[in-house]
Amino acid sequence: MKALVLEEKKNLSLRDYPILETTGPDDIKVAVKACGICGSDIHYYLDGRIGDFIVKEPMILGHEASGIVVETGGNVKNFKAGDRVCMEPGVPDFKSAETLKGMYNLDPSVRFWATPPMHGTLRETVVHPAALCFKLPDNMTQHEGALVEPAAIGMWAAKKARIQPGDTALVTGGGTIGIVTALAAEASGCSKVFISEIKKGKIDFISQNYGGKLETIDLNQSDIKSYFDKKGVKGVDIVFEASGSAKVFESICSCLVPGGRMVLIGMPSGPVPLDVVAMQAKELSIETIFRYVNIYPLVINMIASGKLNVKPLVTKVFSFNDSISAFEYAAALPEKDVKIMIDME
Amino acid sequence: MKALVLEEKKNLSLRDYPILETTGPDDIKVAVKACGICGSDIHYYLDGRIGDFIVKEPMILGHEASGIVVETGGNVKNFKAGDRVCMEPGVPDFKSAETLKGMYNLDPSVRFWATPPMHGTLRETVVHPAALCFKLPDNMTQHEGALVEPAAIGMWAAKKARIQPGDTALVTGGGTIGIVTALAAEASGCSKVFISEIKKGKIDFISQNYGGKLETIDLNQSDIKSYFDKKGVKGVDIVFEASGSAKVFESICSCLVPGGRMVLIGMPSGPVPLDVVAMQAKELSIETIFRYVNIYPLVINMIASGKLNVKPLVTKVFSFNDSISAFEYAAALPEKDVKIMIDME
Amino acid sequence: MKALVLEEKKNLSLRDYPILETTGPDDIKVAVKACGICGSDIHYYLDGRIGDFIVKEPMILGHEASGIVVETGGNVKNFKAGDRVCMEPGVPDFKSAETLKGMYNLDPSVRFWATPPMHGTLRETVVHPAALCFKLPDNMTQHEGALVEPAAIGMWAAKKARIQPGDTALVTGGGTIGIVTALAAEASGCSKVFISEIKKGKIDFISQNYGGKLETIDLNQSDIKSYFDKKGVKGVDIVFEASGSAKVFESICSCLVPGGRMVLIGMPSGPVPLDVVAMQAKELSIETIFRYVNIYPLVINMIASGKLNVKPLVTKVFSFNDSISAFEYAAALPEKDVKIMIDME
Amino acid sequence: MKALVLEEKKNLSLRDYPILETTGPDDIKVAVKACGICGSDIHYYLDGRIGDFIVKEPMILGHEASGIVVETGGNVKNFKAGDRVCMEPGVPDFKSAETLKGMYNLDPSVRFWATPPMHGTLRETVVHPAALCFKLPDNMTQHEGALVEPAAIGMWAAKKARIQPGDTALVTGGGTIGIVTALAAEASGCSKVFISEIKKGKIDFISQNYGGKLETIDLNQSDIKSYFDKKGVKGVDIVFEASGSAKVFESICSCLVPGGRMVLIGMPSGPVPLDVVAMQAKELSIETIFRYVNIYPLVINMIASGKLNVKPLVTKVFSFNDSISAFEYAAALPEKDVKIMIDME
Repeated sequence: MKALVLEEKKNLSLRDYPILETTGPDDIKVAVKACGICGSDIHYYLDGRIGDFIVKEPMILGHEASGIVVETGGNVKNFKAGDRVCMEPGVPDFKSAETLKGMYNLDPSVRFWATPPMHGTLRETVVHPAALCFKLPDNMTQHEGALVEPAAIGMWAAKKARIQPGDTALVTGGGTIGIVTALAAEASGCSKVFISEIKKGKIDFISQNYGGKLETIDLNQSDIKSYFDKKGVKGVDIVFEASGSAKVFESICSCLVPGGRMVLIGMPSGPVPLDVVAMQAKELSIETIFRYVNIYPLVINMIASGKLNVKPLVTKVFSFNDSISAFEYAAALPEKDVKIMIDME
Repeated sequence: MKALVLEEKKNLSLRDYPILETTGPDDIKVAVKACGICGSDIHYYLDGRIGDFIVKEPMILGHEASGIVVETGGNVKNFKAGDRVCMEPGVPDFKSAETLKGMYNLDPSVRFWATPPMHGTLRETVVHPAALCFKLPDNMTQHEGALVEPAAIGMWAAKKARIQPGDTALVTGGGTIGIVTALAAEASGCSKVFISEIKKGKIDFISQNYGGKLETIDLNQSDIKSYFDKKGVKGVDIVFEASGSAKVFESICSCLVPGGRMVLIGMPSGPVPLDVVAMQAKELSIETIFRYVNIYPLVINMIASGKLNVKPLVTKVFSFNDSISAFEYAAALPEKDVKIMIDME
Repeated sequence: MKALVLEEKKNLSLRDYPILETTGPDDIKVAVKACGICGSDIHYYLDGRIGDFIVKEPMILGHEASGIVVETGGNVKNFKAGDRVCMEPGVPDFKSAETLKGMYNLDPSVRFWATPPMHGTLRETVVHPAALCFKLPDNMTQHEGALVEPAAIGMWAAKKARIQPGDTALVTGGGTIGIVTALAAEASGCSKVFISEIKKGKIDFISQNYGGKLETIDLNQSDIKSYFDKKGVKGVDIVFEASGSAKVFESICSCLVPGGRMVLIGMPSGPVPLDVVAMQAKELSIETIFRYVNIYPLVINMIASGKLNVKPLVTKVFSFNDSISAFEYAAALPEKDVKIMIDME
Repeated sequence: MKALVLEEKKNLSLRDYPILETTGPDDIKVAVKACGICGSDIHYYLDGRIGDFIVKEPMILGHEASGIVVETGGNVKNFKAGDRVCMEPGVPDFKSAETLKGMYNLDPSVRFWATPPMHGTLRETVVHPAALCFKLPDNMTQHEGALVEPAAIGMWAAKKARIQPGDTALVTGGGTIGIVTALAAEASGCSKVFISEIKKGKIDFISQNYGGKLETIDLNQSDIKSYFDKKGVKGVDIVFEASGSAKVFESICSCLVPGGRMVLIGMPSGPVPLDVVAMQAKELSIETIFRYVNIYPLVINMIASGKLNVKPLVTKVFSFNDSISAFEYAAALPEKDVKIMIDME
């Protein structure tokens, strides 16, 4: 079938790629209709690796995907051909201890789309366990379906933050993940959500599209603490760290109220300094997240109900035929852009 | 000072009532500017008692109050004369074990406005611990300040429900408390909130004022379970019981998904039947609430941010001079009315 | 193979019963070595049914089982022939939404040993998913292995009670489940555990075997509240209801401190009266349990470490050849007896 | 009254010190009977300061204290002269927001014994809020009463760890706080508690006194990870960091299972490196503690019930008259010693 193949570092082909997938009894086959480009796709494209995951053989990219059911396995009762769906990209061992405990994202044997040696979704059809596919309500588009994946990260972060209604939050970092996290926090009951960023284009994007829900802090004008001091904000209940910057990390404790908590989403390139004594003085706590778990249905609920408005995130759309151009564009992403979507209709 | 005094059952006077209150070092004196009428005020007015609390001597009514600071005690640093505030009506023993544990609402020695032998707030000024007074943001009116009290009950119920973002909820009962609970649940991250009611006037009020946020279930047309079946809803994550009806109680288990929880807010007149085995089959849990605790700042955050819109709840306003008429009106409350407010400006 | 078959109500045979089980790739085959008799086994034996579960065809009884691995499926890596194991009796759909959420006990499709139409474990060998089998440490006997099942109920109740170290607890009901729950609560950090019972033989058993850990309340001498009053106990933090008695149920609220919680384990024969207002006055909460989930490894840890001493619970042992006598004995269980064990070595 | 006064750094006097304390209506006066020496006392003695807290005027030392009530304020109902009590050393503003929320330990205005400018308890009598005094059961000695303070730190750490019954734990650091934390974890339901230490004398002390409950890891022989590998331990559920060592800190992530949590008790002298990505891969979380809150009654419950055996911790006792020698001894504490107690009977 036709697929976008990463032949090796910096070498993409849109070509026929032979994949033999049979639809098992618990699986469905989905014709892919939309697929967003994620930062990890770009990493593999530019570097041929992420950490220990190395692209040694040609690999199909993409994992933020939605589509239409074309075939269902013998045991599958809740899907039929023609259903519009989005798919959760990581497949665990369904009988592992972690899965049974409700944290299948931490199962060491998870196979994740477009993570070597697994192929991704930028191809005509994929076969996937029905248990990890979710129907799209009529009022959600395929683009929104594909956006469930990045939104899931923000929602999982919001869930782990144990938000109390009326809490205030700060998100550090205004990239795609920072934005979806801020939106998820706002939709989850926060009465106020700040988002700090240094890139002017991102700040403008957020202000223009989400100005009514998120308050931007322009790090070119002041650091977070000074901004809070000027506004009379003593601190927030929750900090979502989505920048991965060690420098940002140092300032978090001073931005939190006693009993506050932080959720670490960004992935710093090395160890960051932790001021344990400063944390203890306020009994701060830290949560971390790894992808997400059991969150797709909730994200779909939130998008369908209008509480989580992800539509503005898609700032540019390419056709599947232009998907190499899409990657080139995304690799040099202008600050004003957020999510590049590949339309496979 | 001028006060609305319940002389005895069904006998109200608006008259001068001598109250000697000195502003202690940790107290502030507040000129009352708005006061809502609560169901409990009406109970004392009509019956002269609520359970074991019996009106034996003339008592000033009212406890849903806001106002303007006129005097501050020597230790008070965060208020000054002229500040607009709302006040939490229950004063605990600040050194009790329950207070130290963060549940001062359960302190047996709490003294609560307009609960014998404590006078209420329908008078010119009240003296109150500064720790239980909260500044109103500039964008909140005195009416909204007075509404913080009933809204606090809904928010506390929402907090105890441990809402996960994307959860669905059902509120049984569309009176004032049912509505504020439904609004609080919606603002706290629920993706869908149903509210069931049998009084046509209430249903219309909710549809007209909160149709975009709440979905009404008209119990004249179908019971809840049938309504869910028709809509393809397998169950909700949370039921807030705000009707106090034993009949409603019986149907709750069947409306919840496995692992669901219910929060009991309504106060039935006697024991209700609990189907333990039905609860066990889904491992359902029950939370109960008694007033609220540590919730005023969060409610104010939510109202000020626009996430909790309580303004439509005030359906009729009386002046302080007409407060006896206000009580007569509230005692025979038309279905279309929700909150009667007494304006004391 | 040889099996104890319930032919129909009150009619047991120990006979050859043809069972064709193949060991699937994720399964292991276990030679059963010990099997306890549970109250549900006796119910099926005497009544031929439990609620809607009706014995329509001959069914092998037993589900509290341990044994020795005799064969392992192709994918199984953590077991080998000769391993001593105990087995969790309920097999869910591993891909159901409930299983993925970590609550596979609530999956509607669970198949549970000795619950029609599933055969139980009183036979020579069983085939079971390796994911639901657990190695016994060297210091645990096969009898202790079989006791993991009832102990799991008590431990799951203790876990759902969210015990804080130093909490106090009351268990109402001193049958097997009451005792294991009390022991689990004690081992889980409770500083004091009361257990109330009316049968003299049970009280004596508990006093003699667990007198150092549990304090018995003899309901023939006083009700619980009077006992607490006499001892100066204002209330406990947790009540575990393990009697299923509606009468006991009525007294629970008065035995709990403000903020207390109850866990309902016993299964009353009909609805019980719930005093909602009494619960609200203390903000009491209720948890319920259905069997257990993800708890076997923790129970094994606790038994192996000596913190949970279940050995005294086995008060009488029968050989497999005498298993019909075992059931007759258990059906008329003397008060002094707790668990009847069938030894299949 | 007679008091042990730190005149200035390294200069102690046992002398008459004039203190005028009146017993307020909510206070009790206690004749001090036992007082342990804490690491912080030694810090003030040797350095004249801890961080920003500087001894500028003569200050009485000691805060781990118990005694006998000699006088009660007018409002005090639950104490009478002659009662044996222990006292919680930190007095918050009882009306602060933090106190009302149940976290009075985080109230910025807390005044803590023997923390400048507050005097400590090494004197004949102290006046203290009755709300922070707790009766000692008959089976607890004054020494045990004084040990409630350090034990409270361990118990608070155990409570914040949200121990599930059967969890396994590792405590890094075998000083007094490490030991009480390990004992608290064991008493709170952990099925296995490891404790790592490098000082031979400490290891011996733990093995000899708590060998049945705690498993020591001698860091001279292997690091923790190697020890676990050798024993077949894949990881623990909880790590309590009680060494304050940056080096130990680096190894924690690899010692935890997926979903594990760490509680930071030790106070490193500067920022420590945090491997965020390693934490994320297992979704590890961090809790921190600052002293303790609402825990004294639970600690007393645990000691009185025998579950928390703190008696062996007192390895040397000095009389009040010899308290200067006691400090000299404690300042050069032999490895085999744990807690130095001053007997003031």
